[in-house]
Formats: sequence, C-alpha cells, structure tokens
Amino acid sequence: MAPTRKHQVSVIGSGNWGSTIGKILAENTAEHSDTFEKDVRMWVFEEDIKVPSDSAHHDKYGDEPQKLTKVINETHENVKYLPGIKLPSNLIATPDIKEAVKDATILVFNLPHQFIDKTLDQIQGHHLPYARGISCIKGVDVSDGTVTLYSERIMEKLHIYCGALSGANIAPEVAAERLCETTIGYDPPPMDLTSEDGAPKDNLIKVDVQRQKERKPTSIKLERVPQDLPHVNGELLEKLFARPYFFVHVVKDVAGVALGGALKNVVALAAGFVAGKGWGENTKAAIIRQGVGEMIRFGRTWFPSSVNEKTFTEESAGIADLVASCYGGRNVRSATHAVEQGVSVGEIEEKEMNGQKLQGVSTAQVVYDFLDKHGKTEDFPLFCAVRNIIEGKKQVDDLPALLSKKK
Amino acid sequence: MAPTRKHQVSVIGSGNWGSTIGKILAENTAEHSDTFEKDVRMWVFEEDIKVPSDSAHHDKYGDEPQKLTKVINETHENVKYLPGIKLPSNLIATPDIKEAVKDATILVFNLPHQFIDKTLDQIQGHHLPYARGISCIKGVDVSDGTVTLYSERIMEKLHIYCGALSGANIAPEVAAERLCETTIGYDPPPMDLTSEDGAPKDNLIKVDVQRQKERKPTSIKLERVPQDLPHVNGELLEKLFARPYFFVHVVKDVAGVALGGALKNVVALAAGFVAGKGWGENTKAAIIRQGVGEMIRFGRTWFPSSVNEKTFTEESAGIADLVASCYGGRNVRSATHAVEQGVSVGEIEEKEMNGQKLQGVSTAQVVYDFLDKHGKTEDFPLFCAVRNIIEGKKQVDDLPALLSKKK
Repeated sequence: MAPTRKHQVSVIGSGNWGSTIGKILAENTAEHSDTFEKDVRMWVFEEDIKVPSDSAHHDKYGDEPQKLTKVINETHENVKYLPGIKLPSNLIATPDIKEAVKDATILVFNLPHQFIDKTLDQIQGHHLPYARGISCIKGVDVSDGTVTLYSERIMEKLHIYCGALSGANIAPEVAAERLCETTIGYDPPPMDLTSEDGAPKDNLIKVDVQRQKERKPTSIKLERVPQDLPHVNGELLEKLFARPYFFVHVVKDVAGVALGGALKNVVALAAGFVAGKGWGENTKAAIIRQGVGEMIRFGRTWFPSSVNEKTFTEESAGIADLVASCYGGRNVRSATHAVEQGVSVGEIEEKEMNGQKLQGVSTAQVVYDFLDKHGKTEDFPLFCAVRNIIEGKKQVDDLPALLSKKK
Repeated sequence: MAPTRKHQVSVIGSGNWGSTIGKILAENTAEHSDTFEKDVRMWVFEEDIKVPSDSAHHDKYGDEPQKLTKVINETHENVKYLPGIKLPSNLIATPDIKEAVKDATILVFNLPHQFIDKTLDQIQGHHLPYARGISCIKGVDVSDGTVTLYSERIMEKLHIYCGALSGANIAPEVAAERLCETTIGYDPPPMDLTSEDGAPKDNLIKVDVQRQKERKPTSIKLERVPQDLPHVNGELLEKLFARPYFFVHVVKDVAGVALGGALKNVVALAAGFVAGKGWGENTKAAIIRQGVGEMIRFGRTWFPSSVNEKTFTEESAGIADLVASCYGGRNVRSATHAVEQGVSVGEIEEKEMNGQKLQGVSTAQVVYDFLDKHGKTEDFPLFCAVRNIIEGKKQVDDLPALLSKKK
C-alpha cells in the first residue's frame, strides 16, 4: 500500500538548539513536500520578553514586553535564544503543548533535561499513539544505580518508540550553517519494518524497555505507524534532518549515541585540567584517547547487547563530539581556569557562571556514584580521577600515576 | 634455557626526537640492569657546532666550534637539538656508525626519513644478523604506486625484523616528561616466540616482506635471537620504552602504526583550512572524524591482512596523534594562515618556513597520485580535497559538497 498521507512534524523546545533543529526540520519539510506536511510546529515555553536593543527588530517592538511566540511568528527569529538567525516561515511557534503535539506523527524533543518529565506529563494522552520520537536531549539520567536514556524515558511515558540525535553540534555554529555532522540512533520497532524485512502482522506489540543490563524492564505497547504514512526509517530521518551543511548518519545504537553525549563532558573536564597545567597537545590527546577507551568500556559493561563500539570511535556522537568538547565549550574552559587560578571548579562556577552548574561536574559525580555502587571504579581511572580532582581528593599532578596501568 | 646475556641497545639518530628517545632508553636500561646493558649508544651525525650564547654550557666552551658528540658526552645535553634537557650519563654519543651498531642487539632508528637509505647502506654488514629493530621514523614512503613502511625498508636492507613506534609525541613535550602515550607495532617473527607459543626449531627462516597488497615480496632470511638473550617481545619493549610519564601500548599492527603517522598530516591541513575560515569546533571535529574514516579505509584497502582498524580509532598512533596534529603543529598552523591571508600553502612555506616543506603537502600529493593510479580517488574525498585545495583546483568553500555522500 503506497502512503497517501504525509508526516506532521513537531519540535518540543525552542532554546538555541531547539530553534536550530526547528530551522533544519522546516527547511526539509518544505523541500520534501511529498513526505512531510510543510508546516512544522515548535512548542515554546511562553515568556514575556523584551526585544534586545541591538536587535534588528527592536524598532518594531520598542521596549514593551512581548510574548516570545508572537515575536517568533512575526519576525521569524528567536530574538531571545537564537538572535540573528532567520528561521523559515513554515516553522510555527506555539505556546500550547497540546496544540503542538496534536496530529504530530513525528515528535522531536529538544529541551533541557530538567524539564523533560514535566513536559511529558503534559503531553500524555494528547499525542498520537503511533507517533515516533527523536530525542535531541543531551546526556543520560543516572540515579539509584541505573542509567536511563532520555529516549527510554519518553518511550516509557508516552508509549511511543523514540530514537536519539547527538553529535558535535554547537547550536550557533549549526544555525550559521557551518559544515558539521550528527548521528541519529534509531532502531525501529519490528512492526515498522517493511514486510520484506520481516515485519510482524500485528498493529500492536509489547516491547520491553530495558537497555541497561540488570535493570527491571518496563513493558509498553507500541502501535504500528499506519501504512498510509511513509515508513519511518533511516532514509526518512535523513530526509528530515540532513542539510547540505549538516550531514546525518543513522545507526541502530541509540544507547551509544546518548552515552557519548553524556560521558564526553567528564573527559572535557580532564582535558581542561591538563591544559590548565600547560601540559601541551600530547597530554590532551592522551586524555581524549583514554576517555574514548572508558566510554567504550562503560557502554560494553552496561549496554552489552545494544552498544556498538564504533558509535564511540567513528561517529559524530562519539569521537567528534568528544574532541569538540575537549577544545571548546564551558567544561574544558572552566576546568582550565580552575587549575590556572589554583581554585576549585566549584569556585569557577560561582565566579564565572553565576553559580550555574557545569554539565561535566554533575555527570562526573553521578557516574562515580554509579561505578562505586557496582564496584567498578578501578576499571574507569580517568572518570574517577575527574570526580576526585573536583572533590579535592586528588590533584591534577596525580594523573600520570592514576592512569598508569602499573599500580 | 634462562638468558645469561643482556641486550645492548643503540639509537640511530640524535635530532630532538632521537635524543628524547635516547634519554628514555638510557633511563630504562639503567633501571632494568637484569635485562639490558646499562650504556646506550647514540649515533650522532657529527657536526661542528657553536654552543649557543644562551646555553648554560656557553661559559665552558665559549664561541669556539666544537664537535657535537664531544659536547653531548661532556655536558649530557644535546645543546643544538634538544637544549635545556638533561640526558642520562649512560647515553653515549658516537659519530661512528659502525661503532654505534656493533654488538647492538636492539637498534632503534630515529632519524629524518630522507637520511634512512644512506644510513642503512653504512650499517649493512656491520650489525648483528640477529638484531631486532624499532623504527621511530614518521611516515611511509609512497612512490611508483606502492606504499613502503620504513620498518620494511630496514628489514629489506639489513635482514633483521623491525617494528615501528609512533604516537602523539611532540618531542620537546616528551623530553619535558609531560604525560603522554605512544604505540609500538611489533609482530615478532615466529622464531622469536616462546616454545609454548609454537616457535619453530629453525635458527634461520625465510620471511616474505610484503605488507602492501599487490606488492612484489622481497624474500629475506631472518636469524633467531640467541636463546641466551631475553625474548624480544611486547613485555620487553614496554620495559625498554615505557616511563612513568610515557605510556606504551604494544600492538601487532606495524602497518597501521606507520600509516597513522603519515596520513594524519593530510587531515591536519584540512583542519587548518577550515580553522582559517573560522568555521569553528563542529567543523574541525567533523574533519577529524572523516579523516579517521579515510585512514581506516586506506589501511583496509591496501593492508587488509595486517591492519587492525583499532590502531586508528583507539591507539595513540591513530586518533591521539591525529587530534594533536589537528590542534597543534606546523601543518595545521600553516594551512590556517594560508586561508586567513588568502594565499597558497606554498606561499606560506616560502614566507614562514624559509621554503622548508610541510610534511602534509608532500604526503597529500603522493597519496593522491597513489589513489589516482589505483582508480580510488572517489573513495577518499577528504584526502583528495586537500591535495586539490593545495593545487588551487578546489576551494575550501567546496568542502561541504566534496564531502557530502550525496553526489
């Protein structure tokens, strides 16, 4: 049966990365009108903003507070979170989450991880049961001795299949259309395969969401994407996300894609520590190499059936994002400053980031707790060294001894 | 039979990297006196030098020309090529190559590649037929449609087995004992295995030196290391090369180790090109990732039986050396300047390097010629783009289209 309907795409979240992904989606739905409805809806957490005085749109609005959605839809620019970037006119901002997800067959999640649970609660019951999701939320949730991918959280809460997108994707650089790449992890449920690939006949199948070894599975029922819609597979996702400046590689390894985006921040702190000491390029490269090794070991230990080592060593979500984060960004910069100034990373967070917390610091701590709980700290000397240096229990000068195989 | 003799180690070459490796070797032979003779000989291409006026040793020698070997042996410093670094007193400089190789059971080659052939000619017939070699010579020789590793060249000329050492090892940083790593490729000839590992009984076996597919093999006869000497295996090489600040990983893949050190320079030029455009961290990370991919493909295509992909993705000789070279060093710097100033890389070589040639430029050209001869340019879009940008046939702005999978 040839598809007669088109996919309706919505993006949930409108920060700088959400707006950038919204721009890409809308560019592609306009270009592939055979497959997608042209308009892309973008859910915006509504706020009253003042258009900045240096904005080209300041004249129009003056200093009067405005609804962010109104300004986006009138100016086609997210003047607050992605200023200076023209958004496609078919990217439609909406403050109403129910409106945003209604009829959407593809939901792209792109919001800070601390808002995901509350947002999913608001979506529940208002989305199509056969929608498919892509999570662009960086990181993983580690607590209580378990690692949860945000894509799994979405599956458990909304009972829809969800993949993950991650890569060396600093939002303003992607928005400026500078050459870069990303990785999408998407392992379609069996019912979404073509009949030649052995799709089952059922419209509803039970799936166990259980990626991390030892974790108790959550059973959910997945509904088939109706056959009058185009197949949601790697090819379709490339059509939706790839641009001439944004290369997309689709892999099956959802867990590896998500883990790469989380663990890289710990390695970036280590890279900052040795840079702060002035130890040079050799040392930073050694830290990156050891970091990749521990990322692989982490994946292999807790996601043995799903993780593919190549996600870490050959994909944008792995090595490329790691390298970019070890040479640019807040984690490496703050760690460098801490060592140069002889203060703790915490003091740098206070001083340079108005108390905002570095992603790498919290990840290093939760990863350490997780490893400790499983009695595996010795297998991850770099990850643990970073946490111990943050805590003041070890010094950067201890790194050679801590990383040496000879104990 | 327990070994009753000790290995005599010599290093051939005394530039900044040769002197640094000499320092490491002499530190280790002094520490492991059960396995090695304490004194390490270092062959120095003799020259008359003036001790620089800012040297701590200038007072002793004044402005009178001195023999470099004499100054090294009296001051334990290579004042010309590695100034400011104290060398161990058991590292003995000699200008006489025959003297340097006489009785040496382990020969470490560390000199610029353009001198290797002439030096090997001088060694022929004066070395022990059962010596084993390690080549620290960066790069590979590509000509006439074949790729020759310098370790193979040594095997063919001296009829001794030779491995390779490479990694993210900027010499002054290693000499300053800053934390770093290296990779040694060593695949011992069967006769050097222990009897449990299935060593043949022969003292002399014929070996075909033929690593690159399609290349005509050279047959050489290898002589067994006498059994009164310690086994030359990975463990012994770690003892000889590893220091608390210099981690060593021994792998079997000699070809991968050598190829990594050559091909990285081509990728470093590409990294410089995009940096010169101001394209940011995402783009540089994408270039590195694509570069690793083409390095793997190169190895897989022409050294299918010997190359292990992990050498490129997980070893210091692969990803770490590549990353270090894409963020520091002459190739990336010169390419950046060329783009920033809107001139060719050749003009930068003239202007900033007194006409000295960049390693990456010649490698890009010979690799292109090699690929072209084998009809494989399309499989290596990044390598070929670098050569074409150098030649002025393509622009840096063409990179997104050149690297896109969609043609």
